[in-house]
Amino acid sequence: MIALSGGVGGAKLAFGLARVLAAGDLTIVVNTGDDFEHLGLLVCPDIDSVTYALAGLSDRERGWGLAGETWGFMAALKRLGGADWFNLGDHDLAMHVERTRRLAGGRTLSQVTAELSGALGIAHRVAPMSDQPVRTFVDTDTGRMAFQPYFVRERCAPVVSSLDYVGAQDARPSPAFSEALARPDLSAIVICPSNPYLSVDPILALPGVAEAIRASGAPCVAVSPIVGGQALKGPAAKLMAELGAVPGNAAVAAHYRGLVDGLVIDAGDAADAAAIEAAGMAVLATASVMVTDEDRARLACECLDFAGRLV
Amino acid sequence: MIALSGGVGGAKLAFGLARVLAAGDLTIVVNTGDDFEHLGLLVCPDIDSVTYALAGLSDRERGWGLAGETWGFMAALKRLGGADWFNLGDHDLAMHVERTRRLAGGRTLSQVTAELSGALGIAHRVAPMSDQPVRTFVDTDTGRMAFQPYFVRERCAPVVSSLDYVGAQDARPSPAFSEALARPDLSAIVICPSNPYLSVDPILALPGVAEAIRASGAPCVAVSPIVGGQALKGPAAKLMAELGAVPGNAAVAAHYRGLVDGLVIDAGDAADAAAIEAAGMAVLATASVMVTDEDRARLACECLDFAGRLV
Repeated sequence: MIALSGGVGGAKLAFGLARVLAAGDLTIVVNTGDDFEHLGLLVCPDIDSVTYALAGLSDRERGWGLAGETWGFMAALKRLGGADWFNLGDHDLAMHVERTRRLAGGRTLSQVTAELSGALGIAHRVAPMSDQPVRTFVDTDTGRMAFQPYFVRERCAPVVSSLDYVGAQDARPSPAFSEALARPDLSAIVICPSNPYLSVDPILALPGVAEAIRASGAPCVAVSPIVGGQALKGPAAKLMAELGAVPGNAAVAAHYRGLVDGLVIDAGDAADAAAIEAAGMAVLATASVMVTDEDRARLACECLDFAGRLV
Repeated sequence: MIALSGGVGGAKLAFGLARVLAAGDLTIVVNTGDDFEHLGLLVCPDIDSVTYALAGLSDRERGWGLAGETWGFMAALKRLGGADWFNLGDHDLAMHVERTRRLAGGRTLSQVTAELSGALGIAHRVAPMSDQPVRTFVDTDTGRMAFQPYFVRERCAPVVSSLDYVGAQDARPSPAFSEALARPDLSAIVICPSNPYLSVDPILALPGVAEAIRASGAPCVAVSPIVGGQALKGPAAKLMAELGAVPGNAAVAAHYRGLVDGLVIDAGDAADAAAIEAAGMAVLATASVMVTDEDRARLACECLDFAGRLV
């Protein structure tokens, strides 16, 4: 099966799926719209969040980055007058330096991602959505800006009027993504609980991806990132409101209509199910907030079971 | 005046000179023959040793790098299967990343060195010997290799038969170096106690430098890096023997003959003075091992005084 994932939230379900599926049965396709060149290094925040989660290296208390991270580089960079708006931990930095070095040597992002996740002991395939650069930009009330300045430097404060995924039309799905989509035995596609606009839409914006999902015959289920009308993390609910929708599972369902066969929502939002089902999308209401590893594996199983019932 | 310096040993005297001279009266010209591209970053070990020493940031117990350094990056890089033969501390890394970024933006190594040393509060001019790349290579009994693999990875174990400074003939002295050499009021040139072959000869190999030193009219004094027949640090004595000389101050004097007017040797080696003086080079025998800041400043004063007496 295929999991489509953004960063931290998506990585939790990706971890659960990797717990319950054999390595050959799961391809985790990760958003690269958040990637950016910083200090001469290619930083891929979502790939790294997924990689660190699967390797068991994530800092679960802080909610992002590596456990046991240190910040000597940032302190020294600040002393030198370098750009300090984006925090790069000392250990995390090794990933960006080594990735950039390997890319400069001619390897693709797919190859480098496979190598580096393999070095950390990850058996499952982690693949970028594309080997060509795609960069998310937001148009806001304070101007157009790239994703990371919006997300990190401006802390998502600007009001967004539209998004676009620069380069998507000229990019191709990565080889692992294309191969997984083309497998005749593709059993399911799971859209992880990631931001629909910032994490999932860049993947769906790649030429042929939405069509291939529809044509695959495999059921596609999405896990809503909205619980109780709020995003567990990040600006999903704020963006929904800015883009004219009422933040909630109905808006998630409307966003994915025509692509997704079933939506997983939190048990506390079970009252949302009837309207979504009435509009033609199956709903599974279950405990969708993942705190422990067991939560992650259980939700993964429930998603697979739900998808299996939609065939 | 001008100080010519390699790394750690030279940086001690450079620190002393900066203690006793006004900022406008001292240009510290640093060897770049040890520089190398590593992990996509330009590492300039001698510039950084001088910069850290002048900024009061050196680790004096370990003898190189920054005090309070941490090693999270290296641990994470090793975990990823990256090249781990050259240790880059977390704080030190900020220098290489920021330098590389600024160079990629079109600044010269001279400009970047001035900016970064200025950011660390250094008032005196620290200049690379050249803005064009010069790379020291050694021919050894185990083959030809670049300086850093020889020095760090092989720990100077191979027997050296010759050295060369690739790029030196096509390089130019840096603007600050050229300007300092051309000053009509140039009072002295001090060659710091650095390795003659590895740290000083690359500087002297730049077109016109040796001629300009001779033509300047300013006295040139060198501080011997050899004490009691041994190098205080590094492979200077080993190299001398491999290149056919008896390790000692007489060999240092012979090496610099025709360029240097006076040699500073350690008081414990005072017996070497007569033969060196008989061959036409003045000698100052004094306590040349610098342990404290006061040692550094005192030796700097003695060098300046010695040079003044050679006019």
